[in-house]
Amino acid sequence: MAADPRFHPQAGPQTLAAILAASGATSTGDPARRFRGVAPLQEAGPEEVSFLDNRRYLPALKASRAGAVVLSEAMAADAPEGCLPLLSAAPYLAFARIAALFHPNPTPRPGIHPSAVVAADARIGEGTEIGPLAVIGAGAEIGPGCLIGPHAVVGDGVVLGAGCRILAHASISHALCGARVTLHPGARVGQEGYGFAVAPDGRFETMPQLGIVRLMDDVEIGANACVDRGSQSDTVLGPGTRLDNLVQIGHNVQTGRGCVIVAQAGISGSTTLGNFVTVAAQAGLTGHLTVGDKARIGAQSGVMNDIPAGQDVFGSPSLPVKEAFRAIATLRRLAEKTRGEKR
Amino acid sequence: MAADPRFHPQAGPQTLAAILAASGATSTGDPARRFRGVAPLQEAGPEEVSFLDNRRYLPALKASRAGAVVLSEAMAADAPEGCLPLLSAAPYLAFARIAALFHPNPTPRPGIHPSAVVAADARIGEGTEIGPLAVIGAGAEIGPGCLIGPHAVVGDGVVLGAGCRILAHASISHALCGARVTLHPGARVGQEGYGFAVAPDGRFETMPQLGIVRLMDDVEIGANACVDRGSQSDTVLGPGTRLDNLVQIGHNVQTGRGCVIVAQAGISGSTTLGNFVTVAAQAGLTGHLTVGDKARIGAQSGVMNDIPAGQDVFGSPSLPVKEAFRAIATLRRLAEKTRGEKR
Amino acid sequence: MAADPRFHPQAGPQTLAAILAASGATSTGDPARRFRGVAPLQEAGPEEVSFLDNRRYLPALKASRAGAVVLSEAMAADAPEGCLPLLSAAPYLAFARIAALFHPNPTPRPGIHPSAVVAADARIGEGTEIGPLAVIGAGAEIGPGCLIGPHAVVGDGVVLGAGCRILAHASISHALCGARVTLHPGARVGQEGYGFAVAPDGRFETMPQLGIVRLMDDVEIGANACVDRGSQSDTVLGPGTRLDNLVQIGHNVQTGRGCVIVAQAGISGSTTLGNFVTVAAQAGLTGHLTVGDKARIGAQSGVMNDIPAGQDVFGSPSLPVKEAFRAIATLRRLAEKTRGEKR
Repeated sequence: MAADPRFHPQAGPQTLAAILAASGATSTGDPARRFRGVAPLQEAGPEEVSFLDNRRYLPALKASRAGAVVLSEAMAADAPEGCLPLLSAAPYLAFARIAALFHPNPTPRPGIHPSAVVAADARIGEGTEIGPLAVIGAGAEIGPGCLIGPHAVVGDGVVLGAGCRILAHASISHALCGARVTLHPGARVGQEGYGFAVAPDGRFETMPQLGIVRLMDDVEIGANACVDRGSQSDTVLGPGTRLDNLVQIGHNVQTGRGCVIVAQAGISGSTTLGNFVTVAAQAGLTGHLTVGDKARIGAQSGVMNDIPAGQDVFGSPSLPVKEAFRAIATLRRLAEKTRGEKR
Repeated sequence: MAADPRFHPQAGPQTLAAILAASGATSTGDPARRFRGVAPLQEAGPEEVSFLDNRRYLPALKASRAGAVVLSEAMAADAPEGCLPLLSAAPYLAFARIAALFHPNPTPRPGIHPSAVVAADARIGEGTEIGPLAVIGAGAEIGPGCLIGPHAVVGDGVVLGAGCRILAHASISHALCGARVTLHPGARVGQEGYGFAVAPDGRFETMPQLGIVRLMDDVEIGANACVDRGSQSDTVLGPGTRLDNLVQIGHNVQTGRGCVIVAQAGISGSTTLGNFVTVAAQAGLTGHLTVGDKARIGAQSGVMNDIPAGQDVFGSPSLPVKEAFRAIATLRRLAEKTRGEKR
Repeated sequence: MAADPRFHPQAGPQTLAAILAASGATSTGDPARRFRGVAPLQEAGPEEVSFLDNRRYLPALKASRAGAVVLSEAMAADAPEGCLPLLSAAPYLAFARIAALFHPNPTPRPGIHPSAVVAADARIGEGTEIGPLAVIGAGAEIGPGCLIGPHAVVGDGVVLGAGCRILAHASISHALCGARVTLHPGARVGQEGYGFAVAPDGRFETMPQLGIVRLMDDVEIGANACVDRGSQSDTVLGPGTRLDNLVQIGHNVQTGRGCVIVAQAGISGSTTLGNFVTVAAQAGLTGHLTVGDKARIGAQSGVMNDIPAGQDVFGSPSLPVKEAFRAIATLRRLAEKTRGEKR
């Protein structure tokens, strides 16, 4: 299936030369040969580029009608006749770049939609698009080349760097953002965190949440995900950190560079992640923990203790991954034994 | 408690004849007798219809002042004097139809609110209501009899069949929908999925998400739930599939007919569900799995393997439900033994 | 770090007399002495007030340059020279009140933004602010001193008491609210619950959801959290109950006073919580349960049975907390034994 032109920008055809330049792949083909787009192996035709990065799909490669395929040198010999190998040490990355060449992100259409509500003293960068019914608060500063989607709300004083995208219905307040930050639809950034004291009569009194949110360059926040502002210190997501949909980030959480936090995971207040930490889907971390660089937390894990750098954990409560699976296997074996027993 | 007329449309009184026709129930009562509405057994009065589908509530039936009660033939003898039995083999379904007779869904008030922002080339079907501050994108096609709520955003090129409801603050892009599709408030459909390649310097580069979302007839998406569009293939929810609130559906997920996915459950990318699969609350499935028809996945389960048709699973990681409960019982027994022991 | 004046209202300086009056703390300092704000121990300077309520941070206290610090009498002797002790039996509460003195919640700016869409027969209380692009439905009644944020939607007939805050992008329908209720950004209240009957042909038919939502005084609903309206009875959140972000509350759920429901937890339909119940993050309760006063449900727990008052539970499926941890310890011990064994 080629990308539907009703929904995806088309920037083809492209020459092989342009494809190789964009992707870093190499090929012996004619640099002037033209391709129309990208498609999966099973569906690609002679004018389309496909890719393979898993031996499991070698049969699909052998049957493919694709005009060209990105793959590693080790698999090049398996490309069928008529299918030009584009060699790359990182085929998935190379293919991502080729797909982006044919289907670049929509560029902002500079200007402010007449239905948007923009404060008189907000500063809007060159080339930025403010969509219909967006709201830009007093003193906000929006960098150049940003895309502010329909119904997005940028609060008073918020700063966005160049090339940010605040998409439909997202809201951001109490926040300073670097360049190329993306809030997907319905993301919530900067609202009050969950903190309160108990009065003698049992009533809750809100602890004022006096920090902000800092989103570094290239941070992405998934649809309907939430990032609360700090209570006294700030909530900080490091460069390139990506949150999937429906993730919860409590107040004062800090992450390093390139953390990956998958759908419906949650991180409680004041926990700190190092660089390149992975938190898989539906996992949860309690508050005030420290997680080291490159640690990986398995899906649905419940983390109640610090995790050293490089450690993988699993389970609820979580254990180092080998211990967790040993416990699971032990229990299954014991349960199996009881099968024939009277109880 | 009768339904509060400030919030719920009232279409009563209704005759017994109309009630029986709508519900398929049978009764020996006077077809011309009139009822005013529906109410639970404990609260219904002589002009109201109630229902019973669980023997547990027989005492409430016996004490009820309801004018009529929908129930199975087996329980009819327990209806107190003055309470007319309406017999049905499926009392819950019959009652749903009677309740809908008295309190039909609000019908669209045809027209476009002056504050809505509708692209010049969007096509709007007859009898469709476009609510205040809704945004309809370029080339969108909205079928007849649709209700587009306040602040809803329908993206460029999106197609909606007849009788769809896109409620307050919901957003939909990159999508083709059948008839009678409902997006509850804040639902997100069609946004970019979570996919990226890692560059040699550790930075993430987005894999362009070039598919769309296809929602078949009668699909419902709960409040603040998320359905990402496909990366290369499409994300597809089969006819009648219903998602509860805060559910996450990753890119390229496909479901069959009539799947039930309960609140806060999540399905990772490229997993396929058959027909009539149930995923209970807070359960999670990893990616690239296949789940057979009528399989049922228990609450909070974590599924990492394919599930054959008709199998029930439970636990994290999940097991067939009997094995899961055997393991739970085994562990509890072993733990109990250690109670008196020194450790 | 003092609170950034770009984002947080400033009401300083304040005299020590005012600080003591607001907080109930006591001190021997000069009542006329002025302070500028609040800050954590590590960052506070001589014109700022800090606090300590955990012996763990005694070293930070000893090194602090704070002008004053709220703490219990037992720790007062540890305050360094130049740091005035403000004595309180509840330092966290006292500090919350001092922080609120310096940084009060933004007060509404009375009036209706010209871009808002307000029904002709809606009633708006004195001193209430209706923000840009908010929508107020027919017959809605909004009390005095409310703040209706940008893009908020208040449905037909909804009643809000005095001092409510409906923040950016939140929506509320089919609901009656007391005073000082807060919906944080993107919260969804009053939408249709998840209920349907199965027709003989396998299609689902919606059970009309004929109840409403009642939010008592001081209830708070977190960002992107969802509270469905009742099906026949009502969904009721008792006074002071606070929901964190992304929480799910099914139809007909009822809570008592002062319940705490932490991020991403979910409560299924018709379950009832007593007073001061705590549901920790990502926990789930099935439907039709009863949970007694002051019960506490641990993070990620899965509750399938009633819980008596005062009981703490943990695990999925949940057990009383001691039994749960005994089971966890037992399994770890058994798994450890298998380490050296052949299998």
